[in-house]
Amino acid sequence: MKKSALAVFICAFACAFAFAVTDAPQKIIKLKTPQFANAKSLMTSFGERKSVREFADVQLSEQVLSDLLWAAIGVNRPDGRRTAPTAMNRQEIDVYACLKEGAYLYNAGKNQLELVSKQDCRLIGAPITLLIVGDTAKNSERWAIFDAGAVSQNISLFCAGTGLATVPRGQMPAEDLKKMLKLKDSRQIIINHPVGYPKTKVQDKDIN
Amino acid sequence: MKKSALAVFICAFACAFAFAVTDAPQKIIKLKTPQFANAKSLMTSFGERKSVREFADVQLSEQVLSDLLWAAIGVNRPDGRRTAPTAMNRQEIDVYACLKEGAYLYNAGKNQLELVSKQDCRLIGAPITLLIVGDTAKNSERWAIFDAGAVSQNISLFCAGTGLATVPRGQMPAEDLKKMLKLKDSRQIIINHPVGYPKTKVQDKDIN
Repeated sequence: MKKSALAVFICAFACAFAFAVTDAPQKIIKLKTPQFANAKSLMTSFGERKSVREFADVQLSEQVLSDLLWAAIGVNRPDGRRTAPTAMNRQEIDVYACLKEGAYLYNAGKNQLELVSKQDCRLIGAPITLLIVGDTAKNSERWAIFDAGAVSQNISLFCAGTGLATVPRGQMPAEDLKKMLKLKDSRQIIINHPVGYPKTKVQDKDIN
Repeated sequence: MKKSALAVFICAFACAFAFAVTDAPQKIIKLKTPQFANAKSLMTSFGERKSVREFADVQLSEQVLSDLLWAAIGVNRPDGRRTAPTAMNRQEIDVYACLKEGAYLYNAGKNQLELVSKQDCRLIGAPITLLIVGDTAKNSERWAIFDAGAVSQNISLFCAGTGLATVPRGQMPAEDLKKMLKLKDSRQIIINHPVGYPKTKVQDKDIN
């Protein structure tokens, strides 16, 4: 009986420890190879592009998250170039993924997410939020804003083509987010993109 | 014989007149309904997105030109909203199509091109050039630049998905073009997009 009680105790401790480990955010999240078969046609995606601001309480799968980030600004050629251009190829744009467990930098070259904050930076109730960051030390502010627009449209079209909902938003607590992401002064958060599955049939006023 | 000579003369005159009429640019070019079946999948288009700066001497068909303009900023919903968003739905972005015979404003609502200049505004040898114009009287310059980035990416992805070549370019004789397009002061040409079929296998240095 004593042995059995000890076994129960050890098991309970191990389980508690396991849960604690599970609760802690992973420092690196290896993303999956993008799946090309899962989206609609390009023209249908243009046809279904819209802005949606209400989200269902449904998480994105690892595959969908991986595909989304690759579509946004992933590497699409062996030389490391991307799905969105940057002026003079200065590569001044980064995308951060805010998940429940923390905020991650998308490392496109390694196709992985790298933890930068354990805080929850998500906005307006979406299961994830992408933040598009431009570095004005690498390119002019004008180009950074323009190039961020291209990445934003990649996100909007990916969502249109896969049944997800999103909206490009300028409104956000930019200084607080900048601190959370530990961004140096030359880097500014240009836009945020909450992403999730649509909650309900959206109203006209919510669509742009 | 006299009657026959007169007939030949009238015919020759009519033909010459017809050619003269054909040479003059049309004031309105009615565009075709976009064809959804002609492009690749969305994910393949992300995969093939690149910047190309050399163009074959091949014209775009009316259908391809129509599809391109619709993809860029066409109406995709009954309420008139577009394939690319504008901040606060201010609709401050216009696209002009520079053809050999003149420059045209794309009227998305009527799906037609409207002549604004008989001058040839095309750039770097492409069979057509699109100019993305933002009106800072309707939205802030920052938003106009960002929103132009979204339209630009629509053009880049459409080209990737249909075997066309394009590149977003800041370099251009902006003041001359502004005069040719008769733009009021608050409107600025944010970017130009030469579009055509690719000339040859492009070099790495030309791809971004």
